[in-house]
Amino acid sequence: MDAFRFQNPTALYYGKGQIESHLANEVLQVGKRVLLVYGGGSIKRSGLYDKVVGILKDASVTTFELSGVEPNPRLTTVHKGVDICRTENIDLILAIGGGSVLDCAKAIAMGAKYDGDVWDIYARKGKATGALPLGTILTLAATGSEMNAGGVITNWETKEKLGGGSPYTYPRFSFCDPENTYTVPRDQTIYGACDMLAHCFEHYFHRTEHTPLQQHLIEAVIKTIIENTKAAIDHPNDYHARETLMYCSTMALNGMISMGIQGDWACHAIEHEISAIYDIPHGGGLAIIFPHWMDYTKQVNPSRFASLATNVFGVNPDGKSVDELADIAIAKVRDYYREIGAPQHLADYDIGDDQLDTMASQAVRFGEIGNFKKLNKDDVYNILKASL
Amino acid sequence: MDAFRFQNPTALYYGKGQIESHLANEVLQVGKRVLLVYGGGSIKRSGLYDKVVGILKDASVTTFELSGVEPNPRLTTVHKGVDICRTENIDLILAIGGGSVLDCAKAIAMGAKYDGDVWDIYARKGKATGALPLGTILTLAATGSEMNAGGVITNWETKEKLGGGSPYTYPRFSFCDPENTYTVPRDQTIYGACDMLAHCFEHYFHRTEHTPLQQHLIEAVIKTIIENTKAAIDHPNDYHARETLMYCSTMALNGMISMGIQGDWACHAIEHEISAIYDIPHGGGLAIIFPHWMDYTKQVNPSRFASLATNVFGVNPDGKSVDELADIAIAKVRDYYREIGAPQHLADYDIGDDQLDTMASQAVRFGEIGNFKKLNKDDVYNILKASL
Repeated sequence: MDAFRFQNPTALYYGKGQIESHLANEVLQVGKRVLLVYGGGSIKRSGLYDKVVGILKDASVTTFELSGVEPNPRLTTVHKGVDICRTENIDLILAIGGGSVLDCAKAIAMGAKYDGDVWDIYARKGKATGALPLGTILTLAATGSEMNAGGVITNWETKEKLGGGSPYTYPRFSFCDPENTYTVPRDQTIYGACDMLAHCFEHYFHRTEHTPLQQHLIEAVIKTIIENTKAAIDHPNDYHARETLMYCSTMALNGMISMGIQGDWACHAIEHEISAIYDIPHGGGLAIIFPHWMDYTKQVNPSRFASLATNVFGVNPDGKSVDELADIAIAKVRDYYREIGAPQHLADYDIGDDQLDTMASQAVRFGEIGNFKKLNKDDVYNILKASL
Repeated sequence: MDAFRFQNPTALYYGKGQIESHLANEVLQVGKRVLLVYGGGSIKRSGLYDKVVGILKDASVTTFELSGVEPNPRLTTVHKGVDICRTENIDLILAIGGGSVLDCAKAIAMGAKYDGDVWDIYARKGKATGALPLGTILTLAATGSEMNAGGVITNWETKEKLGGGSPYTYPRFSFCDPENTYTVPRDQTIYGACDMLAHCFEHYFHRTEHTPLQQHLIEAVIKTIIENTKAAIDHPNDYHARETLMYCSTMALNGMISMGIQGDWACHAIEHEISAIYDIPHGGGLAIIFPHWMDYTKQVNPSRFASLATNVFGVNPDGKSVDELADIAIAKVRDYYREIGAPQHLADYDIGDDQLDTMASQAVRFGEIGNFKKLNKDDVYNILKASL
């Protein structure tokens, strides 16, 4: 493995009843002026908003609000939040929602402590100099934002969707109650599963040698996601399926299965370019891109794909070559996406070939992408074309 | 899974060269008066002592020393360390060694901030009220003490060996350089592997339902330990084998594979009673006890043992009953211990049956032990007798 430093300070609360028992105390340890950040009306319809506001009111906490955070959260919304934090002297940002809301809140937290436009940090023109304390209440199992320091923001003026973060943006605490995901619509449940699975794949396909434990840990998460997605889709109120997917999403991207390895992240970079133009769901884009990326890169290390076949999908390797096993693994990944109802082609989102060149150029504007296989503009173009 | 709160704040540094690059900075963030805690002369023979002292000297850090920490560290040694901390106004304790040294340092850290005898905390008569900051440099892959808050101390006056800890005793930072384990003797390497494997088993055999990810994560660590122990024993300077075992030891007991489950810990409790009387190596005692505990408890949930057979040992389940698979798993565990040269019977340490009753009584003096199966005094006696 590579030499590494790992530290993840987030206090994670899992399970039903944790918000009621511990939220007020966690908030009060930071302060009494709290900015609630959330998206549309789903947390109002589900009753979560009323519950949280009630708890904070009982604790004599003063709340301010930034609502309407978009899927693929926008820089303009981040700016609004930063303004509130500065004007109202906010002590703590409390994000209630899925990855988009949490990512927006991270950007606000950095922006409130940054002398300049927080977009600098995402555009690699500046570094975070601090962040307001951030707590989260998760309502969607997908991005792992509840226990990592990163996030993705879209700048619609420049049509850029970029990831960024800092050591300051780990949530101080995160509440993950599976019951808060019961109302997640079928499509979003599917996209969430695709997203967490993609995080596993980004780690799994690396070039670092001698990483047996990391490999087996990632396989554990992949296997568990695949075994539990259908139940959560078909039975939205199945506590254990929701809980398992939520826990997989956290573990897929909190750094615990990826210490000492350099992940790939090319598919995420490509997907961001699709979303930046077409505003499609992140998880849907990843489900489309990944199998084609696998076809395109498998010869870099077919044995890694063969391990996926044997260790995750339980394929008996007897009499099969490594290349055959690799192809079986990719076919099984496609099967999974199809079985859960994920999109398989860009055409599923009515995306044609007219912007392929722009997306390919944008994806590599900071240089080649990927680590398992370095991709240049032509490579990205080829993968996008195969994905049509 | 059970509802849980998880937080592990330790900054983990892995790999060669990390001490040289980052130790001084980590120490200086805390202070300039450091108590070095270590065991016998092994860190002097290996050159690690000179390296660390040189780095601290160059950083103008004033060092104090507590050396001679025993395997199964003793309360009397802890008291000496507490005295030094108080007298010399120590800012940071830097433990250099294996689990015993680290556990001793944790007790000292708590003791320095406790108004009374720190033994109270281990004897369940008091709670920690704080701890001095603690850093560690690990030289033995075994206990996971480098990234958890617990430790075990032996009180020879009362012949008690008890575990204890607090939220304050997570190391602030830990340096894990596999090269520092090259000089670990063969026996200690074996005992270390037995210890980390035992931590996995303690987690694996739980009664919490719906824990598929935890199960697969624990299986990942078990599999990796088993696949890599022989290489580290046979080739002590094999960087990758040493690195993998070290990483397994950290992951086996830093809480990351055991969120939301209640482990068993009966075998640890029983082993502590053996060591408290006979002062045998902890890992050796665990290797003796575990297979007999498995025989004794398998009927509680034979399918858990069957999973061990299929998912860890790769046994083909076709045509085998769950009970047969369970027995195969236990036989495979025995095979592993035998193949690596671990002890198999109490007789291997010249322990006879004359103290079985005392050990059984002591093991349950705070009540029944274990969680997978609750064990009373008779149960413990039976397991010890089977282990003769």
